[in-house]
Amino acid sequence: MSFDDIMKSKLDEASKKVDDHIHRLLVLGEPKQLYYAARHLLDSGGKRIRPYILLKSCEIVGGDSNNAIPFAAAVELLHNFTLIHDDIMDNDALRRGVPTVHIKWGIPIAITSGDLLFAKTYESILKSKNISPLNHDRLIECIERITAATISICEGQAMDLSFPSLDVDEDGYLKMIDGKTASLFKACAEIGGIVGGGEAAAVRILGEFAWNAGIAFQLIDDYLGLVGDEKTLGKPVGSDVREGKKTLIIIHALSQASDDEKERIKQILGNPEASKKDVKSLLALIKTLGSLEYVKNVAEKYAHEADSRLSFFRDSLAKQDLRDIVQFFVKRIY
Amino acid sequence: MSFDDIMKSKLDEASKKVDDHIHRLLVLGEPKQLYYAARHLLDSGGKRIRPYILLKSCEIVGGDSNNAIPFAAAVELLHNFTLIHDDIMDNDALRRGVPTVHIKWGIPIAITSGDLLFAKTYESILKSKNISPLNHDRLIECIERITAATISICEGQAMDLSFPSLDVDEDGYLKMIDGKTASLFKACAEIGGIVGGGEAAAVRILGEFAWNAGIAFQLIDDYLGLVGDEKTLGKPVGSDVREGKKTLIIIHALSQASDDEKERIKQILGNPEASKKDVKSLLALIKTLGSLEYVKNVAEKYAHEADSRLSFFRDSLAKQDLRDIVQFFVKRIY
Repeated sequence: MSFDDIMKSKLDEASKKVDDHIHRLLVLGEPKQLYYAARHLLDSGGKRIRPYILLKSCEIVGGDSNNAIPFAAAVELLHNFTLIHDDIMDNDALRRGVPTVHIKWGIPIAITSGDLLFAKTYESILKSKNISPLNHDRLIECIERITAATISICEGQAMDLSFPSLDVDEDGYLKMIDGKTASLFKACAEIGGIVGGGEAAAVRILGEFAWNAGIAFQLIDDYLGLVGDEKTLGKPVGSDVREGKKTLIIIHALSQASDDEKERIKQILGNPEASKKDVKSLLALIKTLGSLEYVKNVAEKYAHEADSRLSFFRDSLAKQDLRDIVQFFVKRIY
Repeated sequence: MSFDDIMKSKLDEASKKVDDHIHRLLVLGEPKQLYYAARHLLDSGGKRIRPYILLKSCEIVGGDSNNAIPFAAAVELLHNFTLIHDDIMDNDALRRGVPTVHIKWGIPIAITSGDLLFAKTYESILKSKNISPLNHDRLIECIERITAATISICEGQAMDLSFPSLDVDEDGYLKMIDGKTASLFKACAEIGGIVGGGEAAAVRILGEFAWNAGIAFQLIDDYLGLVGDEKTLGKPVGSDVREGKKTLIIIHALSQASDDEKERIKQILGNPEASKKDVKSLLALIKTLGSLEYVKNVAEKYAHEADSRLSFFRDSLAKQDLRDIVQFFVKRIY
């Protein structure tokens, strides 16, 4: 098996228990339509990376990750709540190769099913006491981490909405993905550490590990959004270009482009009518300007930062799994 | 001063500390646009009935309601989160006499600012420990009540969205407003009781009190939505008719109407083009059919149920305030 296949099978294995838990949380509600809508994206795939980081962070501090399942389910519920709402805001019609929730059920049910998943995030954490009672101080710490991450996600999303499409620099972009992505990765690792009984220092370092890993993940995700094929993307090639998605690749390209090239980029980017040929020529230009290489290097730098945090911990299977998941993030583009 | 004026001044007085607390929670965030949007409805009025019930429920069990302020702020944040999202779903342009959040900032920022207020609901509760540390078991109980109420609200909202406009009976309607309104009223009183140090029985009875009060409140709110003037409503007269809002008044009217009258109701209700004259004739018909009187009586019945629960408690100022607020709900229509 290739490294890629090994990682995918590890993610799959970890996700089984998490998905079972999610299924139990979402199976019985009424009206049915609301619960179908809430489960739609969850049932249509996703790599369950956030639960995986949480479970492995529990193990790395010596905890039993079975006790962390309700928390791992919670972060996946939270993630899917933000996806449903993001798809409405971006007017995206496809995700994971299936119609998005608002396309299938309309915007009102999509908004409500996102809200429901957010509430179910807390329910999953609160009901953990029926499975493996956690000291209440630690339970509250977990709820604090979830809440802080959600506030960061909202702020990151609003930054994304507020930026005029081509007027964001590298710092602004990093602040945005800090909010939209890295803050939840950080919370996942911290919660795993807390549930696993880790000391405050271990929890803090796990948070730093996952924050850096989250930035690397998002940089490569944006990269794949530009160069990936339809199967990898789960949506048509060029969607991110036509949508004018703000990525570090575009920011770098604009900073390196001549005035003529800038004009070309601005004509194609965010133009919903851009043809396949336009998209192709934009990608060729971006490549020539060295922007793909640049962003790959930045991602590698964050991945290295993440990896370095793990030296705090003794060698273990969980430590190797966390090292590998970061490599998995950045190696996806080769 | 009239009873109405006395109640309004009591609500105003209680809301000051709650609003200060909310203001502090929402003052410092970035991006500013998100926080302006999140504060917009909160800053434009509202009676703060839910915080009032929470604070008085704290007092009735002998607690100091100053300790309950962060919780009272939390339920108001939660309520406003649902209002922002509801206004998007119903495509309402005005509330409390001002443009709704999505009209002023667009749907994406409105969705996100609602999500933010939901997260801030939990933040307000969690940060209460900086002001008046609550026993962690009780803190978690409060978080459970908030979470359960939100799930009920989502389910109630989805029921509302799922019902074909004219195909809902009295039971279905009551189930819907149980979810959309009464569940949060119930949580408010229970949380007040928990924070105030009430015994389990007192907390349960407070919940029953507020659940009944919430049903009475919603019945009368729907009543006023039909017969109120523009100033009371904060939106044009006839909005609820043109929107086809499902209320017990309409359900009753349809059950009493002749086939011809049913046709007339169905032609006007939910018709965005309905003229002022149409709206007036619908109201006259509803009155003739006895539906206003019927719903007033049902509301009185729930108000009486609420009131009867309070006999569990010794006489106190807080008990009188809770009795009065229920009278205030049902007396608004005279």
